[in-house]
Amino acid sequence: MTASSAPRVRIAEARAHIGQTVEIAGWLYNLRKSGKIVFPIVRDGSGIIQCVGAKADLGDEPFESLKRLTQESSLIVRGVLRADERAVGGVELDVHGFSIVQRVSEEAPYPITPKEHGIEFLMDHRHLWLRSLRQHAVLRVRHEVIRAVRDYFDSNGFTLVDTPVFTPAACEGTTTLFEVDYFDDEKAYLTQSGQLYNEATAMAFGKVYCFGPTFRAEKSKTRRHLTEFWMVEPEMAYATLDDVKQVAEEMVVFVVRRVLENRRADLAVLERDVARLEAVLPPFPKISYDEAVAILQSKGSTIEWGGDLGGGDETILSEMYDRPVMVDRYPSAVKAFYMQPDPERPEVALGVDVLAPEGYGEIIGGGQRVHDLALLEQRIAAHELPREAFEWYLDLRRYGTVPHGGFGMGIERCVSWICGLEHVRETIAFPRMLYRLRP
Amino acid sequence: MTASSAPRVRIAEARAHIGQTVEIAGWLYNLRKSGKIVFPIVRDGSGIIQCVGAKADLGDEPFESLKRLTQESSLIVRGVLRADERAVGGVELDVHGFSIVQRVSEEAPYPITPKEHGIEFLMDHRHLWLRSLRQHAVLRVRHEVIRAVRDYFDSNGFTLVDTPVFTPAACEGTTTLFEVDYFDDEKAYLTQSGQLYNEATAMAFGKVYCFGPTFRAEKSKTRRHLTEFWMVEPEMAYATLDDVKQVAEEMVVFVVRRVLENRRADLAVLERDVARLEAVLPPFPKISYDEAVAILQSKGSTIEWGGDLGGGDETILSEMYDRPVMVDRYPSAVKAFYMQPDPERPEVALGVDVLAPEGYGEIIGGGQRVHDLALLEQRIAAHELPREAFEWYLDLRRYGTVPHGGFGMGIERCVSWICGLEHVRETIAFPRMLYRLRP
Repeated sequence: MTASSAPRVRIAEARAHIGQTVEIAGWLYNLRKSGKIVFPIVRDGSGIIQCVGAKADLGDEPFESLKRLTQESSLIVRGVLRADERAVGGVELDVHGFSIVQRVSEEAPYPITPKEHGIEFLMDHRHLWLRSLRQHAVLRVRHEVIRAVRDYFDSNGFTLVDTPVFTPAACEGTTTLFEVDYFDDEKAYLTQSGQLYNEATAMAFGKVYCFGPTFRAEKSKTRRHLTEFWMVEPEMAYATLDDVKQVAEEMVVFVVRRVLENRRADLAVLERDVARLEAVLPPFPKISYDEAVAILQSKGSTIEWGGDLGGGDETILSEMYDRPVMVDRYPSAVKAFYMQPDPERPEVALGVDVLAPEGYGEIIGGGQRVHDLALLEQRIAAHELPREAFEWYLDLRRYGTVPHGGFGMGIERCVSWICGLEHVRETIAFPRMLYRLRP
Repeated sequence: MTASSAPRVRIAEARAHIGQTVEIAGWLYNLRKSGKIVFPIVRDGSGIIQCVGAKADLGDEPFESLKRLTQESSLIVRGVLRADERAVGGVELDVHGFSIVQRVSEEAPYPITPKEHGIEFLMDHRHLWLRSLRQHAVLRVRHEVIRAVRDYFDSNGFTLVDTPVFTPAACEGTTTLFEVDYFDDEKAYLTQSGQLYNEATAMAFGKVYCFGPTFRAEKSKTRRHLTEFWMVEPEMAYATLDDVKQVAEEMVVFVVRRVLENRRADLAVLERDVARLEAVLPPFPKISYDEAVAILQSKGSTIEWGGDLGGGDETILSEMYDRPVMVDRYPSAVKAFYMQPDPERPEVALGVDVLAPEGYGEIIGGGQRVHDLALLEQRIAAHELPREAFEWYLDLRRYGTVPHGGFGMGIERCVSWICGLEHVRETIAFPRMLYRLRP
C-alpha cells in the first residue's frame, strides 16, 4: 500500500531519516488542537510520533477532516521528519498530506478512552487494550525475556528439544490436569511440565531445554496463576544440584541484563525502578529450607518444619533480599517423586526454588533427579503411580543412567517481576484463567 | 561430578584442547577390539569421539572391564586429546583412565542395536532412539531452523506475541478440533492457528509473529500429518499479498542458508544432497492457481478448476522446480472465510501457498485477510459461523482497519524437506499421531 512516492518508514527508525520526506502508516493515538494547528499523535506499532498539521499547509477541508479524526482511525501521514528533543523519540513530523484509511465512527467510538476502565472491561477488550502504551511495554519486555532465555541456552551448548503437549500420563498428580478426548476413546492430558521427556533428551544430547506452553487446571484465582502459561525447562546430564543452581543464577542474571540493555524505554513507560533490576547480580543469596523455616518462624509465620512454603512465606523471604534468593533442600515428603534425596540427609530432597525479590516469590523450581533404578521404582510404588506408564522413564535408569538435573522457569512470573506488575494476567497477550477463556 | 582433576570438556569442543589431558563424560556408543587395544567410541550428546585404550596403559583388570563394557553404559574417560584427521571430528582420545558410572546389564542389553529395527519398534523406543546419530542430526537441524526463523523475525521488526492454545471458537471448521473440558462444563478447543489473534496483535504492534504448538484432530495417516505440530505465523498490518510473498521468500531463503552455514555435518550424516538446498535462492518461481491447474491437467491430473490441489498435485508441481514454488489466487470457495477476494476477480482469493521442491509439497499457506467490516460480516454469515464468537474479531474492522496479511509455516514439514526425510515423524522428539500417544 503506497499513498505516495515518499518512502515508508517505521516510527522506531524515524530518527535515522531526519530532514527527509517520508510516510508513516499507522493509527491515530491521540489528537490535540490549537487554533489553526493540529497535533495528531500517530502510532504504528513500533512507536508513537507527534505530528504537526497546519491549516495553511493542508488546506481548509483536509485540515478540518484531520481535526475531526477519531481515536484509532487508520491513516497514512506524509511529511518531513524534524528533530525535536522535547518530543517522544526525539523527532516530530511536519504533515504535508495524509490519507485516511478508515475513519472510526463517531457514533460507535473506540471503546477504550483515556479515562479509567475496570479490569474486567479491559480484559473483555483485550484485543484492543493491547494497543495501549503500557501493554506494549509489557509485551516487548516479554519478547526480550524470551529472546534472552533462548540466546542464553543456545550459546551455552544446550539443544532445544521441544517436548509434547499431549501426554498419556501425569507428571505430578492428576487433579490439576486438563483432559482431552484423543481418538477412539483414548484420553490425553495436556502437559504440566516437559521434565520427564527432558530427562530422556538430556541423555541423548547432554544439555537440552524445552520451551512451550504448559497447562494447569488449578481453580485458584491468585495474581500468580494462569491456566495456560509458558515455561522454559533446561535439563543436564552429569549434573548435580550445584550445577542446576549455577545455571539458574547465570540465566536470570543474563535475562535481567538484556532487558536493561534493550528495553529501558519500556521499563520507563512502566515506571519500573530500574535500580531494583540493576541489583540483580551474582552471587544470589542461598539458604536452606531449614534456615528459611527458622527465619519465617522468627518473623511470625506459622510454618512448621515439614510443610511447604505458603504464598505468604515466599513473600516474606523474597522481600528480605535485593536479588533473587535460592532456597534448597526441602523435605522430600512435600516434593515430587523424582527428586533425588540428599545422600547425607535422605529426609530432604536435592531441590531448589528461586524466589524473585520484592515479594514476587517463586519463579524457578528445580533440582537433581533420582538416577538410581531401584530407588525410582520404590518411589513410583510409594506414590501409587501407574508403573506401566513409567516404564519408558525407568528405561533411562536402565541404560546408562547418570546424575542429572534441571529446572523450570515460568515466563509470566518472571516478566511480572521484571516489569513490576501486580498480576500475571498482563504478561501474556490473551491470558487464560479460571473464568477467562475470551477473547 | 568430577572423576579426576582433569578439566571436563565436551566432545564438540575437543579440537580446542588437543595435547591436553581432559575428561569426557558420556555413554559408550560402540566398541571395537584389536588384541591388546580397545577403541571405545564415546558420545556425550555434543558429538562422538573415538578413544584408544591400551592394556599396557590401563592395567589388566581395568582393560578387561572396559573391553566388556556394554552399549550405552555411562562412563567418564580421562586421557590426552590427539589430532587425527582420519577420526570423526579430527580428534581422538588416548585413554589413561576411566570410571564406569553405570554398566548396562548384559542380560537386558540396550534394545536398539546396529541391526535393522521396524519403525513401530523404534517409535515405541523413541526415548532411546533419540540417542542415535541420525536422530541427533535431524533434531539439531530442527533447532537451527527454529533459531533461524526467530532470528529472521526478531531482526526485521516483528514482535513475538504468542497466541493462546485454549480458544473458545474454531478458526477453520470444527471437525478437526480437539475439545477440552475447561471449568464448570465450559468447552475449550486447542488452537489450530494463531492467525485470528495475530490479526489483533498486528493492529497493535504493526508486525508480529507467534510460534507454538498447534493441533489438528485429523484421522489421516500420511507422511505429512501430525496431530500436534509447531507453526510460526507472522502477520503484518498495512500489507498486501505481495508483501506476504516477499517475507515468505526471504524467510525461507534465510532459514535454508543458516542450516547450510551451521549444520553441514548433520546434513552429511543424513546423506542430504546439499546442492538441492544451495539452489534455494530468490526469486522463487511464482504461478497462479489458474496456471497450476493448466500445468497439472497437461501432466495427467484429474483436477478441475475450482477444486483444491490434492497431495499428488502438490507433488507434481513441487517436483517441477529446483526451489520452492509459490501458487497464488486460489478459488475463494476452497479457502477460509477470512481470505480477501482479488478486487479484479472476486472468485479468487489473495492467498498463496509455498510448495517445497523435490515433491515435499506445501510448507507455507497464507495471504491477505478481509479488512472490510461489511464483507467480513457477510462471510461469517455465509459460512454459518457463530457471529457472537467473532464480535471481537469484527472489532478489528471497526477500529482502524487496514489491509493486512500473513502466513503460517509448519516447522515439521520444513525440517522434513530440509533434511530430506520420508516422513515428518522423525522431525519432532515425541511425535503425536492417530495411533501414537506414547512414550
